[in-house]
Amino acid sequence: MKNLIKFPLMVSAGLVAMTTIANAAVEVETAFVFNTLMFLIGGFLVMFMAAGFSMLEAGMVRSKNVATICTKNIALYSIAGLMFWVVGYNLMYDIDAGGFMGSMGIWSSIGGDAGAEAGDFGDGTGYGAYSDWFFQMVFCATAASIVSGTVAERIKLWPFLIFCAVLTGFIYPIVGSWEWGAGWLDAKGFSDFAGSTLVHSVGGWAALVGAIILGPRLGKYRTVNGQTVVTPIPGSNLPLATLGTFILWFGWFGFNGGSQLALGSGADAMAIGRIFTNTNMAAASGTVVALILTQVLYKKVDLTMVLNGALAGLVAITAEPLTPSIGQAVLIGGIGAALVVFAVPLLDKLKIDDVVGAVSVHLVAGIWGTIIVPFTNSDATYGVQALGIVSIGAFVCIVSAIVWLVLKYTIGIRVTEEEELAGLDVSELGLHAYPEFTHDAKI
Amino acid sequence: MKNLIKFPLMVSAGLVAMTTIANAAVEVETAFVFNTLMFLIGGFLVMFMAAGFSMLEAGMVRSKNVATICTKNIALYSIAGLMFWVVGYNLMYDIDAGGFMGSMGIWSSIGGDAGAEAGDFGDGTGYGAYSDWFFQMVFCATAASIVSGTVAERIKLWPFLIFCAVLTGFIYPIVGSWEWGAGWLDAKGFSDFAGSTLVHSVGGWAALVGAIILGPRLGKYRTVNGQTVVTPIPGSNLPLATLGTFILWFGWFGFNGGSQLALGSGADAMAIGRIFTNTNMAAASGTVVALILTQVLYKKVDLTMVLNGALAGLVAITAEPLTPSIGQAVLIGGIGAALVVFAVPLLDKLKIDDVVGAVSVHLVAGIWGTIIVPFTNSDATYGVQALGIVSIGAFVCIVSAIVWLVLKYTIGIRVTEEEELAGLDVSELGLHAYPEFTHDAKI
Amino acid sequence: MKNLIKFPLMVSAGLVAMTTIANAAVEVETAFVFNTLMFLIGGFLVMFMAAGFSMLEAGMVRSKNVATICTKNIALYSIAGLMFWVVGYNLMYDIDAGGFMGSMGIWSSIGGDAGAEAGDFGDGTGYGAYSDWFFQMVFCATAASIVSGTVAERIKLWPFLIFCAVLTGFIYPIVGSWEWGAGWLDAKGFSDFAGSTLVHSVGGWAALVGAIILGPRLGKYRTVNGQTVVTPIPGSNLPLATLGTFILWFGWFGFNGGSQLALGSGADAMAIGRIFTNTNMAAASGTVVALILTQVLYKKVDLTMVLNGALAGLVAITAEPLTPSIGQAVLIGGIGAALVVFAVPLLDKLKIDDVVGAVSVHLVAGIWGTIIVPFTNSDATYGVQALGIVSIGAFVCIVSAIVWLVLKYTIGIRVTEEEELAGLDVSELGLHAYPEFTHDAKI
Repeated sequence: MKNLIKFPLMVSAGLVAMTTIANAAVEVETAFVFNTLMFLIGGFLVMFMAAGFSMLEAGMVRSKNVATICTKNIALYSIAGLMFWVVGYNLMYDIDAGGFMGSMGIWSSIGGDAGAEAGDFGDGTGYGAYSDWFFQMVFCATAASIVSGTVAERIKLWPFLIFCAVLTGFIYPIVGSWEWGAGWLDAKGFSDFAGSTLVHSVGGWAALVGAIILGPRLGKYRTVNGQTVVTPIPGSNLPLATLGTFILWFGWFGFNGGSQLALGSGADAMAIGRIFTNTNMAAASGTVVALILTQVLYKKVDLTMVLNGALAGLVAITAEPLTPSIGQAVLIGGIGAALVVFAVPLLDKLKIDDVVGAVSVHLVAGIWGTIIVPFTNSDATYGVQALGIVSIGAFVCIVSAIVWLVLKYTIGIRVTEEEELAGLDVSELGLHAYPEFTHDAKI
Repeated sequence: MKNLIKFPLMVSAGLVAMTTIANAAVEVETAFVFNTLMFLIGGFLVMFMAAGFSMLEAGMVRSKNVATICTKNIALYSIAGLMFWVVGYNLMYDIDAGGFMGSMGIWSSIGGDAGAEAGDFGDGTGYGAYSDWFFQMVFCATAASIVSGTVAERIKLWPFLIFCAVLTGFIYPIVGSWEWGAGWLDAKGFSDFAGSTLVHSVGGWAALVGAIILGPRLGKYRTVNGQTVVTPIPGSNLPLATLGTFILWFGWFGFNGGSQLALGSGADAMAIGRIFTNTNMAAASGTVVALILTQVLYKKVDLTMVLNGALAGLVAITAEPLTPSIGQAVLIGGIGAALVVFAVPLLDKLKIDDVVGAVSVHLVAGIWGTIIVPFTNSDATYGVQALGIVSIGAFVCIVSAIVWLVLKYTIGIRVTEEEELAGLDVSELGLHAYPEFTHDAKI
Repeated sequence: MKNLIKFPLMVSAGLVAMTTIANAAVEVETAFVFNTLMFLIGGFLVMFMAAGFSMLEAGMVRSKNVATICTKNIALYSIAGLMFWVVGYNLMYDIDAGGFMGSMGIWSSIGGDAGAEAGDFGDGTGYGAYSDWFFQMVFCATAASIVSGTVAERIKLWPFLIFCAVLTGFIYPIVGSWEWGAGWLDAKGFSDFAGSTLVHSVGGWAALVGAIILGPRLGKYRTVNGQTVVTPIPGSNLPLATLGTFILWFGWFGFNGGSQLALGSGADAMAIGRIFTNTNMAAASGTVVALILTQVLYKKVDLTMVLNGALAGLVAITAEPLTPSIGQAVLIGGIGAALVVFAVPLLDKLKIDDVVGAVSVHLVAGIWGTIIVPFTNSDATYGVQALGIVSIGAFVCIVSAIVWLVLKYTIGIRVTEEEELAGLDVSELGLHAYPEFTHDAKI
């Protein structure tokens, strides 16, 4: 009897222990679902950034090149997915710790979900292999999207797409493997949460090298009395560029928030809330800084600079959207935008013709965001951040230059002067983006 | 004492058993929340496809018909929701197993959530009744969106909207009941995961019949020496069409992913990850195939065909986005796009004027996607897939033809020649979509 | 032995008890993740409404003012975030129960997440502090977005932005504190689920006062024989306005659904499903009512009125999207749209020039939605609803008038006649939104 009396108490104790266990953490299969869901939501948001880049670039080029830039954007997004499947993913993630690059070979999920399919959902950090692949793939596509804006309005369609295939199949994944694949740069302690350097600067360097090798658009720069005179070439559709910027901002919540790579605990959920907030505030700050700076410097607000200010804020916070306070995020985003306001005319002085300002936004603000990580994240150091920026910059520049030059001296990368004047839509596609609107293109 | 010594061990064993139970599956109310959340996320993504169709079609018609096509698209989405509530949902889902159609009558959630409201969340497959209704409703609207593009630029506004009411209230739900309502076609073993046939072909058949009965736009076809000469009528705003395609691609993750109808387990989450990946890769493949084929066939890349290639890839994978490997998804999507590249000129040869290529994309690629299901899903057979395609096609064609013809011989379906030349925006709406842009429409 | 035999049975009983506990509710940390996730998803959807307002307004103004309206929209969204951080959030939520306003001071999460960070996830209603802040911030931005459309095409950029800063930093948060901050109006029993009054009418009143103080656009109204003659000023890009409306509709699922403020239980999930459905059906009904009414009244369907009808349905259902049946939601949304169809010409009779119809949509339909809450929600009374509408209206009108007048008599709020005729894009920004499309702006 005594035992029987004690028994319920002990069972009760057991229940308390059980409840404690149940409450100690989200149940592992539930966590698995949450983590996978975060990759899916983050993934579709980042996928939509492809539309954002398309609209931003379509709005910033002249109407005679709009259909071509749309074609490039949907094509490069598609090619990125195929290349990342055929070679990129394994090159990036199937790598030995501390290594330089992963394995060659088509990605297959075989094995990736095996444990979970057998009912073993691990320790609460698990997720579906495909959802992860999808999320990483849309990042790869983003790097290529950055390039297309810079080299617009004079590059041939097919050489551009070949460059994108190399970038998304090899250049981006190799650099990515150094850090996110747990390669040598990660071993050094480099820190780049969502890719200010790994995605945005990679795209920015490749774009910069491309712009230099391609040369500027006809009529953009003249030299008068030894001074460079810049002829502004206004974009044809600024509401479309505005829409593109808003879509990018919207997608960036997936870009930075999804880079938490987990939603399987209350701590993860809190972190993503913080990331959303900091991402938004850096962009808001970038917008306002560009607004004020262009008013002060030029006596008129410049919408295209304001849009680039928002994007610069987003790029700058991407290297570390979690550790800053809101005030620090505002500072980081605002300085990113200020750098862009000065970088755009500087590139023009150097006669580097960047149609949409992507080098200023993605490379300059990307470097800034990366170097400033130690300001808010004590796990990072300025030295290693600089090492990462320089080594990745050197690698991307060298390899990009080789690819651009091989293309230039084989199939050629630039349309003829006649084609450029007529517009790429006619020469590359044989159609008009707005056949009824523009005066000389009316058909 | 002995008992007491053993006791903790057994409690411990009980705890292990308990933990095993807790880990064996996501807790049922949690699963209920996940399932409901998937319907909500899938639903808002598919809802946004209405914007995608609007922009695609607005970009593909001439500027004089743009406001009308926008009006049609927001109106049909609204009418679809109302009709699906008043009669469609019960016609589709309140059906006896193996039956031909459900019950007539307005949908009410009464009873649908009763169990869950009483605290009984079932076995882990439950979900909120309204979330399910919302998700099914946006599918219904999609079928109608497909029609509007094909018959654009010459159909009267109100007869078109009456047709949409019949399509979304009766035709789509009856056909849907055969399979997704567990009717006779489901009993036969027909397989259509997210609706290559049930949604896309239904819209495609209705559009095809409408286009034939309406006749082509003025000036589209001439006969010269017994040969049909096609006059291309270019769309007025290709970046808008590109945006529409990207929005559709974005929404398709909800369309196919949400059709898993559950997120309440790790297996569901993994499945949706796979569906997202295959959906994306089929579209990517369709894009690249259309890019290459138009280059090879016409020596110029055709942006509108590339956009339709992407959409064809999406339609083709929709019948079975879960079982294919990525390679198979690439194949299925790519062949879907190739079929569209050939179907578009074929329809022109038949003098069937499809303004946006919707019949080629949604019907042809929809048939392809449906017939190829057994290639990757051993639960399906080619015979039953063909039976489903043919029986659904026959039903939709016959009923659509009756409705179109009744409309034609009562209130009329086509605007006058003068109205068509002036543009439907003037005749149907009395305004201009772009009053300041086009040359002759400047006011 | 007897004990030992009984023992497993009792452990089994203990397991049953345990299972019952586990099933009684979603585990608290899981609920915390769900709740936080709902804020994040709702937040990014509402954030995207900023793009919707931009496109709606960009499509409804003349092309000479398009870049300016884009600039205003991205700037006001950014300023709203900064102001809500610096002062708004604490003014709104750091308030004593029944009070008139909260505390002054910058928002910091310090303490907000302290419990959860220590592992105490509370009772299932918890959520991450940042996710909540983000969600509330995007609501604040919405209020400002409403104003920009009404006062477009003649207001100076910087005075407008200063007004937005006051609105989002002080006016909106103080009014919001009365109800959502649990202030005096909440104590009275006022009911406004997602903000027909707290967000939409606040924006509407501020816009109305601004429009009156600013005066109408040049050429909009003439007096002939004592009668007001209205010159319609058509919008420059109706597909863009349509896109904006669809984006707003899409974002509204986050606006109303997220206002459930929880997803941590099956009951919450069911409620959100119901909210999504009612939100959609009210908009669908508004669309169809506007379609039919404009056909009957004007013999032609008016696309811009149809778009406003959809938005009016959305605004009307926002005060109570949960308790109505679908039929009631259809009624509420439809009447909201009907009121707008009559309010728009009424405002014109009063020579109040509202460029996009925002006062009719957000104020008139907002009042309607708020007053009708007791029809479906027995917790509300018509008297208290009227009290809330009137007191909030009075406060916003008085404070807005003071701010607008101070701006008018210090830095001025209206551009000169020459600037207005030339377009604000030239005078405020020095550029063109569509430099290649419009006839006189070709550069």
